[in-house]
Amino acid sequence: MSGNTFGRLFRVTTAGESHGPGNVCIVDGCPAGIELSEADLQPDLDRRRPGQSKLTTQRDEPDSPKILSGVFEGKTTGTPIAIVIPNRDQRSADYSDIKDKYRPGHADYTFDAKFGFRDYRGGGRSSARETNVRVAAGAIAKKILRQWHGITVVGYVKQVGDVIADIPEPEKITLEQVEASPVRCPDPRKAAAMIELIERVRKEQDSIGGVGEVVATNVPPGWGEPVFDKLKADLGKAMFSLPAVLGVEYGIGFGCATMRGTQNNDVFESVKDGDKQHVATTTNRHGGMLGGISSGMPIVMRCAVKPTSSLSQPQRTVTRDGEPTTISTKGRHDPCLLPRFVPMAEAMMALVLVDHGLLHRSRQSPR
Amino acid sequence: MSGNTFGRLFRVTTAGESHGPGNVCIVDGCPAGIELSEADLQPDLDRRRPGQSKLTTQRDEPDSPKILSGVFEGKTTGTPIAIVIPNRDQRSADYSDIKDKYRPGHADYTFDAKFGFRDYRGGGRSSARETNVRVAAGAIAKKILRQWHGITVVGYVKQVGDVIADIPEPEKITLEQVEASPVRCPDPRKAAAMIELIERVRKEQDSIGGVGEVVATNVPPGWGEPVFDKLKADLGKAMFSLPAVLGVEYGIGFGCATMRGTQNNDVFESVKDGDKQHVATTTNRHGGMLGGISSGMPIVMRCAVKPTSSLSQPQRTVTRDGEPTTISTKGRHDPCLLPRFVPMAEAMMALVLVDHGLLHRSRQSPR
Amino acid sequence: MSGNTFGRLFRVTTAGESHGPGNVCIVDGCPAGIELSEADLQPDLDRRRPGQSKLTTQRDEPDSPKILSGVFEGKTTGTPIAIVIPNRDQRSADYSDIKDKYRPGHADYTFDAKFGFRDYRGGGRSSARETNVRVAAGAIAKKILRQWHGITVVGYVKQVGDVIADIPEPEKITLEQVEASPVRCPDPRKAAAMIELIERVRKEQDSIGGVGEVVATNVPPGWGEPVFDKLKADLGKAMFSLPAVLGVEYGIGFGCATMRGTQNNDVFESVKDGDKQHVATTTNRHGGMLGGISSGMPIVMRCAVKPTSSLSQPQRTVTRDGEPTTISTKGRHDPCLLPRFVPMAEAMMALVLVDHGLLHRSRQSPR
Amino acid sequence: MSGNTFGRLFRVTTAGESHGPGNVCIVDGCPAGIELSEADLQPDLDRRRPGQSKLTTQRDEPDSPKILSGVFEGKTTGTPIAIVIPNRDQRSADYSDIKDKYRPGHADYTFDAKFGFRDYRGGGRSSARETNVRVAAGAIAKKILRQWHGITVVGYVKQVGDVIADIPEPEKITLEQVEASPVRCPDPRKAAAMIELIERVRKEQDSIGGVGEVVATNVPPGWGEPVFDKLKADLGKAMFSLPAVLGVEYGIGFGCATMRGTQNNDVFESVKDGDKQHVATTTNRHGGMLGGISSGMPIVMRCAVKPTSSLSQPQRTVTRDGEPTTISTKGRHDPCLLPRFVPMAEAMMALVLVDHGLLHRSRQSPR
Repeated sequence: MSGNTFGRLFRVTTAGESHGPGNVCIVDGCPAGIELSEADLQPDLDRRRPGQSKLTTQRDEPDSPKILSGVFEGKTTGTPIAIVIPNRDQRSADYSDIKDKYRPGHADYTFDAKFGFRDYRGGGRSSARETNVRVAAGAIAKKILRQWHGITVVGYVKQVGDVIADIPEPEKITLEQVEASPVRCPDPRKAAAMIELIERVRKEQDSIGGVGEVVATNVPPGWGEPVFDKLKADLGKAMFSLPAVLGVEYGIGFGCATMRGTQNNDVFESVKDGDKQHVATTTNRHGGMLGGISSGMPIVMRCAVKPTSSLSQPQRTVTRDGEPTTISTKGRHDPCLLPRFVPMAEAMMALVLVDHGLLHRSRQSPR
Repeated sequence: MSGNTFGRLFRVTTAGESHGPGNVCIVDGCPAGIELSEADLQPDLDRRRPGQSKLTTQRDEPDSPKILSGVFEGKTTGTPIAIVIPNRDQRSADYSDIKDKYRPGHADYTFDAKFGFRDYRGGGRSSARETNVRVAAGAIAKKILRQWHGITVVGYVKQVGDVIADIPEPEKITLEQVEASPVRCPDPRKAAAMIELIERVRKEQDSIGGVGEVVATNVPPGWGEPVFDKLKADLGKAMFSLPAVLGVEYGIGFGCATMRGTQNNDVFESVKDGDKQHVATTTNRHGGMLGGISSGMPIVMRCAVKPTSSLSQPQRTVTRDGEPTTISTKGRHDPCLLPRFVPMAEAMMALVLVDHGLLHRSRQSPR
Repeated sequence: MSGNTFGRLFRVTTAGESHGPGNVCIVDGCPAGIELSEADLQPDLDRRRPGQSKLTTQRDEPDSPKILSGVFEGKTTGTPIAIVIPNRDQRSADYSDIKDKYRPGHADYTFDAKFGFRDYRGGGRSSARETNVRVAAGAIAKKILRQWHGITVVGYVKQVGDVIADIPEPEKITLEQVEASPVRCPDPRKAAAMIELIERVRKEQDSIGGVGEVVATNVPPGWGEPVFDKLKADLGKAMFSLPAVLGVEYGIGFGCATMRGTQNNDVFESVKDGDKQHVATTTNRHGGMLGGISSGMPIVMRCAVKPTSSLSQPQRTVTRDGEPTTISTKGRHDPCLLPRFVPMAEAMMALVLVDHGLLHRSRQSPR
Repeated sequence: MSGNTFGRLFRVTTAGESHGPGNVCIVDGCPAGIELSEADLQPDLDRRRPGQSKLTTQRDEPDSPKILSGVFEGKTTGTPIAIVIPNRDQRSADYSDIKDKYRPGHADYTFDAKFGFRDYRGGGRSSARETNVRVAAGAIAKKILRQWHGITVVGYVKQVGDVIADIPEPEKITLEQVEASPVRCPDPRKAAAMIELIERVRKEQDSIGGVGEVVATNVPPGWGEPVFDKLKADLGKAMFSLPAVLGVEYGIGFGCATMRGTQNNDVFESVKDGDKQHVATTTNRHGGMLGGISSGMPIVMRCAVKPTSSLSQPQRTVTRDGEPTTISTKGRHDPCLLPRFVPMAEAMMALVLVDHGLLHRSRQSPR
């Protein structure tokens, strides 16, 4: 309702700014009895953190989470889990240069228009720094999905500039394949080209956009609510809530515009599963959701991520008083957001799925 | 929470199936004192209704709404507005043919997996028939946006198959221009090509996809909430909640993937507005939202809509028991969903905007 | 959020005024597969309807519900259930007498202050007529509670004026015992005294207050959420949402103010249940909830209901312009609200319980 | 939805246990531009803290809040305010004595039934310690109410055991009068008797119940939503969400049961207010709300608070295995909860009012 809570039954509420003491989240609705410690959160935080490779910003923010509540004797209690991630790298910077200017592509102007003033220290609440607690919450969600349903959520970089990875079977990509490259692209040949492109762009004091792809396997059929809270609608909202995302698609996506129905429809078939059989489709242009409800096929989504707005070369803009001026952002920014986008997108997909899993279960007969 | 309510302060709850007595919505949170009657709802319902042109299905559903509450002496009272749209064309059809088969591309299988059985009469709740009450609610939202803020929401068909309209200034398109063509494309030359394509596809017993574009002008800067309830996130969810939408983008959209930051950032400038001046951008690749909050520039979104799944030619599928079979849907379906998609997308954008307008206002000092 | 929706997973949204075409509710989140027809709703509606005995208003409103959606082949589909109850007795009355006056004890003035004008026809939305759809929704909730959990919800009149029923074991009262008397008091001796008192009050053109008691048996231990959404908090809200309720208590209630801890604490014991044993308390001063969560003991609540505000004798008041005047309400009002209050309170308790039952289930491991 | 969030537009989410590192709350939806620092939160926290007088527990918990976000240059930014209150007095106690026993009157058994295990350290999440962050959030709410609307919220102890304070004009009681006595009863004579009673009860190793009264003045008419989210319903839920509250009433409360309509109705009159005039009632049996919406008269509520469940004398109970045993709680508990209940109840009333103030404003025309 007020913009900083996500989910219904598995609910994440966040707070914090880029240059305050730290970021906080409260995960409410986590089932009791799940083994949990800070060590469960660290791996994904390390994938999201700045300074992890030459492809990302060189700021050093180790992102060490501290669980303040909701865990007792190593297990979740069913009560809210508060997580704090202190901000370590709060440089006592001199912001007088950007204090009264609107950075192009950033939320400086829109926050000012909304609230009447803004926290000019590194974007304040509009900084992508807030996503670290989302990633921490997502790590909890992933754990439940894996333990309760065998669901895996894996993301990777599909495209950087005009370099497009060739991933014929998205559902087969593993975390290990993704992490094998600093650009998080599991197509090794294209990964090399992406790295080269990013390096070139960085040297030119510029930035470059791209596309991330996220895949969930083993989602049971039947998750998602008809009409407004379709799984595709909630996943779409989740992805668009991430900074810099300008487009979201699933399955064939925008490619459907030029398709005929006879080409596009995925045909149902019956698949043997040991003794049992279940319904599947022979192809997955529908991206794992029909009528907005999971079909049992892999869920496949893509997000378009714009080039980093902060540039070290000067850009034209105006001051708060409307006077023309120029601005250049001091170093330390990612020339391409995609490698660090991957764990954020995975986290958001996991949060949506765990919530829908609880919703689905709630209405099943206890008898 | 249960999937059939949309919005926070301006809240729409819907019910109804394609072959039940009718569809119902309750609009809760509408401000008091707005002049309202059924006549305000009819025009957009007529734009959405089947049978309006040769390009759409020939089913005859006049969609005559009846307001049951919330209006007194011609004005809204501030209490909930219940609207019922009876289903007129409930053919006593013989569904034995499709009762136990899953139609490809439809939600038959996923509903069955979710609920344990399905209403096989024309898709039941998963039919696009449910959108008629959304359009009625959207008409109320549009009226408030226009009266209170001067906001206009206009949609049109941007692409059908490989025919792409040329719309250099989306914010200048008027309702009249859109309605001038049965395909709802305001580029007359491309409209003709789209119509020709749709006619050809229909004759081939096939269907075709496309892209719709929706534009809101005069949205004040500052609407939208930071982090999860970004305006772009809520608009994204709204669009993805519509049937057949496989992709959503705003501004430059997926085109950002190949852009450099220097190319993509929209530069701020100061614009004279009579005596006053305000901040604007010289270009609108950001589609009217920065940090997910409105910038005062036109909001421009696009939705990819898949080709109609129902085809009159036979398709392969399975029965509920997993037996291979074929299915063909008896006539009367839109060969292309786009012309009727336009009013639905406008309605969803209007619902999101009016809700955020109320949210924004709620926190402004009364002093 | 906008005042006309209740519940989270089992969600009821209502609309309608006393003198409009009818009242509407949409029940969203009802599990699929529950047998349901209008006949399930009628008995409780008949208990709530006006004109059922000499003790109630003589208006004749048969309250015949019509289910418009969400039921197919006799069972709920899992999609929203829309129910309409037409208003039959819309007298084309002359309201010029009360149009510009504020009736004491009613919401005329507060609605006017809130919305800037009011529907003066019989109270509009503030009329207790809106509760008929709550009772219909509650009947569905009761059915699920009974079938899934063996829970029974029974209410009765505990007090009218200074006549207080003697109900030593609230959990043993049956619907039959309640319905045996038109005043819905299962203590036959006190029921007679209540009837006599109500008759006397009516003749004196006056009204009288009272207390209703509602009891739920077989609620499993563990329902309710810690902190804000305690079961007692949600039940408290539910009861206070009913018209004319000025006080709510459970268990020993206000009687706890004069108790010592040694007297008030209910002692735990172990109870044999066939082969099994479970924990119970030897007494039930805690009214079935500890820490706001159900204990497995009967849930017992009481509501104080004020005397009917509408009186046929003249009362002093002011006009909309602030001029002193008098007002008298034309006949046909209940001299005592309690007998018809009983099914309303039962419905609200059932709605809260079914919602918490679904919430509780949602977080239990599927393994 | 998950029990640890309260409010809609002004939303408080809490986390923390009695013996964890601390309690946390996130206040989301606070308007921008309100001056705020920890010093604003301290006074009410000091009124709630243990160890403040001989009448309360002797535990020493200074409750020093730390604001982690949402405030910049001394003012709220409009983004979420995270507050942490560390737990200082986490005695490394030996809980082996109570670990497997259910304390009578506490939530030990019900939490165990709900979650499958419990945090036995001092009640964990069910401890009243969680209310400290509510009081902190309430202090922010009070500040907005005062600055924006001139609203004051004051609570006091109305009754302890059979000692009932005489407060003829609740709306005239000031914070200073309340704080003049350690028992927080503004009737000095009865305050002395209450203190004496509490001292006696403590010596007898027992506890005693009571009643708190909370009053809000200057609430504008028209706040509250019709039907489910009546102001009285939300206030009722708020009060029942506090530990140990077994009854809530407003205005005449349960006293209405024996009233006639002619006695109970408050008569409207017109009151001169300098040049203006407004509508008021000559009496306030309706406690400031009609139809659940504020009338402009003082809002007056009372809560029945049970005697402290923890007793240092032995009480009978059972173990987790159902074996009969006895339990006695080691010292340091309040013999009467009422003095420390007062700031909690004020906080909850303030949270409800500020939320309804924002809701009310959201739907007013911007023109």
